[in-house]
Amino acid sequence: MNNFQFRNPTNIIFGKGQISKIADEIPKDAKVLMLYGGGSIKKNGIYEQVTAALKGISFEEFGGIPANPEYEVLLEALAVIKEKNIDFLLAVGGGSVIDGVKFLSSAALYEGDEPWDILSKGIRTEKGMPFGTVLTLPATGSEMNSGAVVTRAETKEKLVMGGPGLFPVFSILDPSVVASVPQRQIANGLADSFTHVLEQYMTYPAGGLLQDRFSEGILQTLIEVAPAVMKDPADYEAAASFMWSCTLALNGLIQKGVPTDWAIHMMGHELTALYGIDHARTLAILTDSHYTYNLETKKEKLAQYAERVWGVTEGTTEEKAKAGIQKTKEFFESLGIKTNLSDYTDESEGTAQKVANRLKERGMTKLGEHGTITPTDVEKIVAMAY
Amino acid sequence: MNNFQFRNPTNIIFGKGQISKIADEIPKDAKVLMLYGGGSIKKNGIYEQVTAALKGISFEEFGGIPANPEYEVLLEALAVIKEKNIDFLLAVGGGSVIDGVKFLSSAALYEGDEPWDILSKGIRTEKGMPFGTVLTLPATGSEMNSGAVVTRAETKEKLVMGGPGLFPVFSILDPSVVASVPQRQIANGLADSFTHVLEQYMTYPAGGLLQDRFSEGILQTLIEVAPAVMKDPADYEAAASFMWSCTLALNGLIQKGVPTDWAIHMMGHELTALYGIDHARTLAILTDSHYTYNLETKKEKLAQYAERVWGVTEGTTEEKAKAGIQKTKEFFESLGIKTNLSDYTDESEGTAQKVANRLKERGMTKLGEHGTITPTDVEKIVAMAY
Repeated sequence: MNNFQFRNPTNIIFGKGQISKIADEIPKDAKVLMLYGGGSIKKNGIYEQVTAALKGISFEEFGGIPANPEYEVLLEALAVIKEKNIDFLLAVGGGSVIDGVKFLSSAALYEGDEPWDILSKGIRTEKGMPFGTVLTLPATGSEMNSGAVVTRAETKEKLVMGGPGLFPVFSILDPSVVASVPQRQIANGLADSFTHVLEQYMTYPAGGLLQDRFSEGILQTLIEVAPAVMKDPADYEAAASFMWSCTLALNGLIQKGVPTDWAIHMMGHELTALYGIDHARTLAILTDSHYTYNLETKKEKLAQYAERVWGVTEGTTEEKAKAGIQKTKEFFESLGIKTNLSDYTDESEGTAQKVANRLKERGMTKLGEHGTITPTDVEKIVAMAY
Repeated sequence: MNNFQFRNPTNIIFGKGQISKIADEIPKDAKVLMLYGGGSIKKNGIYEQVTAALKGISFEEFGGIPANPEYEVLLEALAVIKEKNIDFLLAVGGGSVIDGVKFLSSAALYEGDEPWDILSKGIRTEKGMPFGTVLTLPATGSEMNSGAVVTRAETKEKLVMGGPGLFPVFSILDPSVVASVPQRQIANGLADSFTHVLEQYMTYPAGGLLQDRFSEGILQTLIEVAPAVMKDPADYEAAASFMWSCTLALNGLIQKGVPTDWAIHMMGHELTALYGIDHARTLAILTDSHYTYNLETKKEKLAQYAERVWGVTEGTTEEKAKAGIQKTKEFFESLGIKTNLSDYTDESEGTAQKVANRLKERGMTKLGEHGTITPTDVEKIVAMAY
């Protein structure tokens, strides 16, 4: 097991009717900016619940943060924060809104001239403006971690940021909200959280016995609840296990002390930036080809996964590993997610090279848990995904 | 799944050579009291590592905190804290030292006249004196939770305390320290952490799908590493998984959203207070009879445990449940722990009644996840343990 440090101070408030507790978690004299996305919260009752819960607290609103939060829109919100002397942020939404608010938390206290530097120069945020979240869509785990991904439309860039200053002070997780999530987004949430676990688990045996068990436990739970939550998002018990699994999939715990991959995400971000493919679907597209291409270095863990998660008992290590890849592809397809790149874009020529070149331009030439996946490998992996 | 709140802000610093990082975690101007137990840290090199790491920081020492930290000894340490204007505590030890320091953290800021009230009146600690820990013995999980157990020798009382003010600021977990732990204490650590998980898991199905998987994962890991760590405590990889499993067994995570039992602990504490039996051994003694006595209400989870953790595939639910109990008893015995009360005390007459009466006197008349275990039941369960 590798040495590690783990600290996650976010206060999770989980369950039915918990949105009403927001005001207990925000300082009474705070000047709050409530941020949300395209307005679905005004249709499903969450907007009313949140604003009712904020009674007695001074707050402004900023709606319209798009999926893959765009830098240009976030700059408008940043101007509101400065103009209105905001000192506490409240994200009401899924991963995109929460990630956008994390950028704002950092940018609001950033002393440089150009907030984009936080992303392009990889500046770690030690201290951000305090913020809480009300999660409306289980998927990214952003509600209990200190990372974020922000997109810049004009340059088609999608970059990551983070730091210990970016943990939410609190996050309210009411599984009842899942009832109004469209099925497409539930499928995305299942695939996204599933891949988050895979990226932290599917490497090589490294003595992380408990980390492996926890990772396998999240995968098993997602597989177990997927049919129920896809069939009826108002099934509270299924939604609760789905939501808690998404959070634990990326709150830092399972990656501590073990190697991690994240190459699927790095390649997937480029597909989203280039073609606007849903984040989760880019992951589902690339999983099969990434694991097949890297079978030799990943086969022990792939076989362990096939055995423990899918109950595959027959075959050699390599055969089990391949069965694990196939089961994963079938799981994504069972969610209605197409897993071939050709299902998403006609641009069959040049895409693989484009992705490779874009990563190369940013110096991301050594991906994967061994740091051995070069732009040449990326090109082959993406090409295999057609 | 039940509603829950989860926040655990302790900074875990895990791995080889991490004790040297202590000074980074303590305010430079702090006046520190370093507390430890019977002096084993002076023999195994940990004392030297800690004091070397504290270079440049002003600190005093208090040694001699006994197993099952005694109130009388802790009062002496409290006097030192007040006399020397201490404002930061450092526990170097196992669960007893850490629990003792938690009491001191609370008592140092307590405004009442009688610190024992914190225990006897169940006063919750909202704010304590900040403290860190250097763990020398994996077992109790106290290094990453906010609870403690303190004993008062004169009245033979062993009482629990806790509150959000009692999380360690940091805990240093270096698995290398396991190399010098006597085998008896390693066995105790395995049994203690194993039972911690059982108390939070062995109730009834309650929709905590992920919590069940995590609990089962900790149990599987403890079973997997037990032979290696018993055979050679210097096996770093085994010690690392053992240590991290003990911490995760009782850091709050697996109990969130699900019912918990804790009756074994409540009865076990009385056996320790009455006869001085090692805490972990009291748990091993009572597990079999508690689960057998409560088979009807626990059989679904017992059968699930037998299947998933021990691979029991044959039989009815009840047969699997009984197999699970038997496997547990055999696991404890495999650690060299005798699991019958008659192995520990000749006082075969009256013990069961004594335990029942003591719990009754403290108003603990409704134990277990259903609150249905009365002193009459306690008497029968303890009697069955002979």
